[in-house]
Amino acid sequence: MTTRIGILGYGNLARGVEASITQNPDMKLVAIFTRRDPSGVKIHTTGVPVVSVDSIEQYKDKIDVLVICGGSATDLPEMTPKYSAMFNCIDSFDTHANIPQHFDNVDAACKANNKTSLISAGWDPGMFSIQRLYANCVLPDGKDYTFWGPGVSQGHSDAIRRIQGVKNGKQYTIPIDSALEAVRSGKGPSLTTRQKHKRVCYVVAEEDADLAYIENEIKTMPNYFADYDTTVNFISEEIFNRDHSGMNHGGFVFRSGTTGFDRDNRHIIEYSLKLDSNPEFTGSVLIAYARAIARLNAKGDYGCKTVFDIAPALMSHLSDYDIRAHLL
Amino acid sequence: MTTRIGILGYGNLARGVEASITQNPDMKLVAIFTRRDPSGVKIHTTGVPVVSVDSIEQYKDKIDVLVICGGSATDLPEMTPKYSAMFNCIDSFDTHANIPQHFDNVDAACKANNKTSLISAGWDPGMFSIQRLYANCVLPDGKDYTFWGPGVSQGHSDAIRRIQGVKNGKQYTIPIDSALEAVRSGKGPSLTTRQKHKRVCYVVAEEDADLAYIENEIKTMPNYFADYDTTVNFISEEIFNRDHSGMNHGGFVFRSGTTGFDRDNRHIIEYSLKLDSNPEFTGSVLIAYARAIARLNAKGDYGCKTVFDIAPALMSHLSDYDIRAHLL
Repeated sequence: MTTRIGILGYGNLARGVEASITQNPDMKLVAIFTRRDPSGVKIHTTGVPVVSVDSIEQYKDKIDVLVICGGSATDLPEMTPKYSAMFNCIDSFDTHANIPQHFDNVDAACKANNKTSLISAGWDPGMFSIQRLYANCVLPDGKDYTFWGPGVSQGHSDAIRRIQGVKNGKQYTIPIDSALEAVRSGKGPSLTTRQKHKRVCYVVAEEDADLAYIENEIKTMPNYFADYDTTVNFISEEIFNRDHSGMNHGGFVFRSGTTGFDRDNRHIIEYSLKLDSNPEFTGSVLIAYARAIARLNAKGDYGCKTVFDIAPALMSHLSDYDIRAHLL
Repeated sequence: MTTRIGILGYGNLARGVEASITQNPDMKLVAIFTRRDPSGVKIHTTGVPVVSVDSIEQYKDKIDVLVICGGSATDLPEMTPKYSAMFNCIDSFDTHANIPQHFDNVDAACKANNKTSLISAGWDPGMFSIQRLYANCVLPDGKDYTFWGPGVSQGHSDAIRRIQGVKNGKQYTIPIDSALEAVRSGKGPSLTTRQKHKRVCYVVAEEDADLAYIENEIKTMPNYFADYDTTVNFISEEIFNRDHSGMNHGGFVFRSGTTGFDRDNRHIIEYSLKLDSNPEFTGSVLIAYARAIARLNAKGDYGCKTVFDIAPALMSHLSDYDIRAHLL
């Protein structure tokens, strides 16, 4: 069975989804929808139309799953419920605190229109969430640890760029080795914010900018930097463009728990991702879940789903027999 | 909802299941069934009967899930289909090559009797299988690596003990650090058997045994040791009993894959377990899946299942709302 995919948006994540489709022979890209003037959007795949989002309803019967590549702040809360009235949708909504509200909105739209959508796919939320859930089910008595990085935090980079005198800036979140080792040792440590991650910034300053001022503004910024050991490096624009345009990311999920009648045996579950391209990996996760969503909808299982509701077999292009024979 | 559990057998794994029930307030141990004389079986939990397996049918309506703790060689191929005619069952069948046949036998018994059973739960097969499947779905172009240990291999320990002059013996399977590092580096190495694992043996010899003979018999044993770098340590019975009675185990699952239109971005997914007690961790996995199986059966979803067929939310005692709010 071929799954026909539409993509809404054409930024980094959308290109990651587009690339992932080329790795999955049962997936077919039907159209890319844009809020911009379609004539100005040049996509990678040949022979696939770029269509104004105003005409998206014409694709109602031509697409099995619409992958919505928008921002969590304002795009997705509006788009995913809206388009779940027309399509099975998938998004990467990552504002953790608002997930219950977003879920309810998408669920209502799906159920009124016999659609099946999945929210909050990717790696966190997404693959990391699954790891947390499995590990909590298997080790009910224990502690969870999530570390992010090494990788770029978009929000922290934006915060740097808003400081007066900053021309460009990028912030790397880096898990601290001694904290990782303490967790791996099974000691079940209590770790402060400062003990878990450090922040390293690369800043291109405007000519004649006050570097001491910039450095102090960064290091004392509440919420973003004040609770962390932060390093600020001033570099040239040339070096910045050469060395800091990557989109690598990753992180670690641990659960450290005990079993036995006396809870005296300790177990450590560790999951980690080391990703050259955050948007391409995220796009690959979205496409694997698109396969599952199309199948659930075909079975008449409507409503909003999350990664927790999806049996892993539904994500594979292999038959149930083959995955049992080769991967179990 | 309380899930009423029966356990068949009372070895190490069964005790691990029994201990796990004490960590899950929604689980209740109803009875332990034995092929031995029940009067000779002393269990840990007070107030729970030990019952001859000959009377198991009397518990047909008193148990939601029967956890079958038997060996994969001869017990489970017979027991799981047999008892799936009376109960929802769960086992840890781990003879990989025979999984398709075992699945078909259990599936037929379940479907004829409106039961839901799950085979091959634990950590490998089990949690490791899930990791392989998710990683293959997300990274279709890549290579899988599974490493086992450090931990005791029961089969290899048995093989040592069959050698003339050996009083007792234990074999540890140990992943080789340089191989783990090569995989983590993203080089996607091709590794020989010898490069992945080494084998370390602790042997208590009979008085006057020929140690050189024993060492040579071990190191040249086909399939078991000949393809590995093997170390043989002769120790006293006292040291053996003091240092080598643990049941720790663990291992690593990796997938190393590429994405992008030119497949030029590399991603490494790594999952690892470090377990103080193999049977207690395995028992904890079985109990988490018992919850899922009871739910599927209550919904009328009959037949044989594997870990691939189970949405992770089904394994949690938390509500769907709570897992979305707290773990996504």
